[in-house]
Amino acid sequence: MLKPLGNRVIIEVAKEEEQTVGGLVLPSSAKEKSQTGTVIAIGDGRVTDNGTKIDMVVKEGDSVLFEKYSGTDIKYEGKDYLVVKETDIVAIIG
Amino acid sequence: MLKPLGNRVIIEVAKEEEQTVGGLVLPSSAKEKSQTGTVIAIGDGRVTDNGTKIDMVVKEGDSVLFEKYSGTDIKYEGKDYLVVKETDIVAIIG
Amino acid sequence: MLKPLGNRVIIEVAKEEEQTVGGLVLPSSAKEKSQTGTVIAIGDGRVTDNGTKIDMVVKEGDSVLFEKYSGTDIKYEGKDYLVVKETDIVAIIG
Amino acid sequence: MLKPLGNRVIIEVAKEEEQTVGGLVLPSSAKEKSQTGTVIAIGDGRVTDNGTKIDMVVKEGDSVLFEKYSGTDIKYEGKDYLVVKETDIVAIIG
Amino acid sequence: MLKPLGNRVIIEVAKEEEQTVGGLVLPSSAKEKSQTGTVIAIGDGRVTDNGTKIDMVVKEGDSVLFEKYSGTDIKYEGKDYLVVKETDIVAIIG
Amino acid sequence: MLKPLGNRVIIEVAKEEEQTVGGLVLPSSAKEKSQTGTVIAIGDGRVTDNGTKIDMVVKEGDSVLFEKYSGTDIKYEGKDYLVVKETDIVAIIG
Amino acid sequence: MLKPLGNRVIIEVAKEEEQTVGGLVLPSSAKEKSQTGTVIAIGDGRVTDNGTKIDMVVKEGDSVLFEKYSGTDIKYEGKDYLVVKETDIVAIIG
Repeated sequence: MLKPLGNRVIIEVAKEEEQTVGGLVLPSSAKEKSQTGTVIAIGDGRVTDNGTKIDMVVKEGDSVLFEKYSGTDIKYEGKDYLVVKETDIVAIIG
Repeated sequence: MLKPLGNRVIIEVAKEEEQTVGGLVLPSSAKEKSQTGTVIAIGDGRVTDNGTKIDMVVKEGDSVLFEKYSGTDIKYEGKDYLVVKETDIVAIIG
Repeated sequence: MLKPLGNRVIIEVAKEEEQTVGGLVLPSSAKEKSQTGTVIAIGDGRVTDNGTKIDMVVKEGDSVLFEKYSGTDIKYEGKDYLVVKETDIVAIIG
Repeated sequence: MLKPLGNRVIIEVAKEEEQTVGGLVLPSSAKEKSQTGTVIAIGDGRVTDNGTKIDMVVKEGDSVLFEKYSGTDIKYEGKDYLVVKETDIVAIIG
Repeated sequence: MLKPLGNRVIIEVAKEEEQTVGGLVLPSSAKEKSQTGTVIAIGDGRVTDNGTKIDMVVKEGDSVLFEKYSGTDIKYEGKDYLVVKETDIVAIIG
Repeated sequence: MLKPLGNRVIIEVAKEEEQTVGGLVLPSSAKEKSQTGTVIAIGDGRVTDNGTKIDMVVKEGDSVLFEKYSGTDIKYEGKDYLVVKETDIVAIIG
Repeated sequence: MLKPLGNRVIIEVAKEEEQTVGGLVLPSSAKEKSQTGTVIAIGDGRVTDNGTKIDMVVKEGDSVLFEKYSGTDIKYEGKDYLVVKETDIVAIIG
């Protein structure tokens, strides 16, 4: 189990359907990175300078849309995840 | 449905009328990006470091003018939207 | 009607008299941008991190002097305006 | 009349005596910019994020020494002035 | 004994299993830096500008995942450690 | 008399003894700038965003050690001084 | 005597044993800078924007480990010291 720190969120990034351009299957490097995923784990929230804990808005299981190129790729137990700060999450898909 | 986080606002950008220069229809890349649009969804407002929630000023349905080149383009259910922070909205057109 | 957000101010920039150098009328690109204008609309003021609203000092109709190159040019109903933050206004001309 | 905003100060920059090097009068571009001047007008002071107004220390008529290259040159009624923030004023000459 | 200051954490970085590519043992410089380790010592927490001490979340013995390339390598009594700020720790592995 | 503003300190920089390398007197540009001096005048202290005035620690007459390359050179009544912020003063030599 | 200001700490950097590579004594420029030292003097602590004094954690005589390349080299009474801010001290060696 991974417990994120602060306002971090662990996301399982949604796999994109294979895209083809005129019948040609594009290799992954030629595709745009996915922007959606499912929240797997959340932190307890950021603690600000005056000691206030800012509660998280997203929760486990939420489908989310996040800023392109944000976050850090991590590998855990052979699977790839993305860790982003909640401030990089654009919207909850509900 | 998309629920923006923080002080984010989802905007459906206004389509610009086809512009012609001496009869020549300009391809989109040669046109200046539109600066107006309609607010589709708003966040609950930014939570500051001392835990204060700053209420949003814009609301759904507002026509807004926003800073050029601000925000992130997103694609949701086949449609293109722009997500900007409320601080990038210049004015409400009323 | 345009209602600026935050501490933004919409300015109608003063037209400069045609300048001539040895009889040659300078095209606008060769002239220095005007630094004065009239306030057309003002926002409700910036809301700071602790929720304090900072009242605006300038008001509609004020003649103002603003920092060169500050702000964003906007076009609204066929007229050009400049939107600046109040912090970019140097002085009120009274 | 010019009323500066915030913690701005309008300064009439002191004219430097003509400097000559071996009899040659240096054109102004070859001289170092003056660092002293007289305060012509002051703002009401900066309003901080918690709504506190920080009173100005300099007052009209003060001779001041200011940081080189700070501020903005303005032209008003045919005369040149410098507008600096009070934080760019190094010292009052008394 | 090393007592970290502020919100620093001393980590013993996990050794990665020898990786081979087609039978060739890769020299360490060709391998990606490990992202996991064990917390050896923690500071008392960061003291913020208003004198609030922010308690540490990680504790000695925790297995942690940290941001790639964060922190400072130190050598102490012949062993290599990594010192990171708690804000660079992504998650606790529990 | 010069009265510094904020947390500024006017320093008369200590003259370094002439240094010679193999009998050759080094011109000043080839010497390292002095790092010590005497405090000639001090400001009333910095006023922070919540209106708190931070008292100065150094006082007139103190010998101080300051960060290399910090501050602004000023010329006043034909003498050269250095104006630094108190935060650039490393230590008082007592 | 040197009395550091704010949260500064004066450190006597530990001399590294002469290192030899295949019998060749390396000149100092080819060696890595030491990261440990002894605290010689400490400031009274940083005063924050709301006037809070943050007490120092390190004290005179402490052996400390500090960030590589941090601080300012000073020469005082013919001896070399390093002045760092307490925030650049990684750990106390106890």
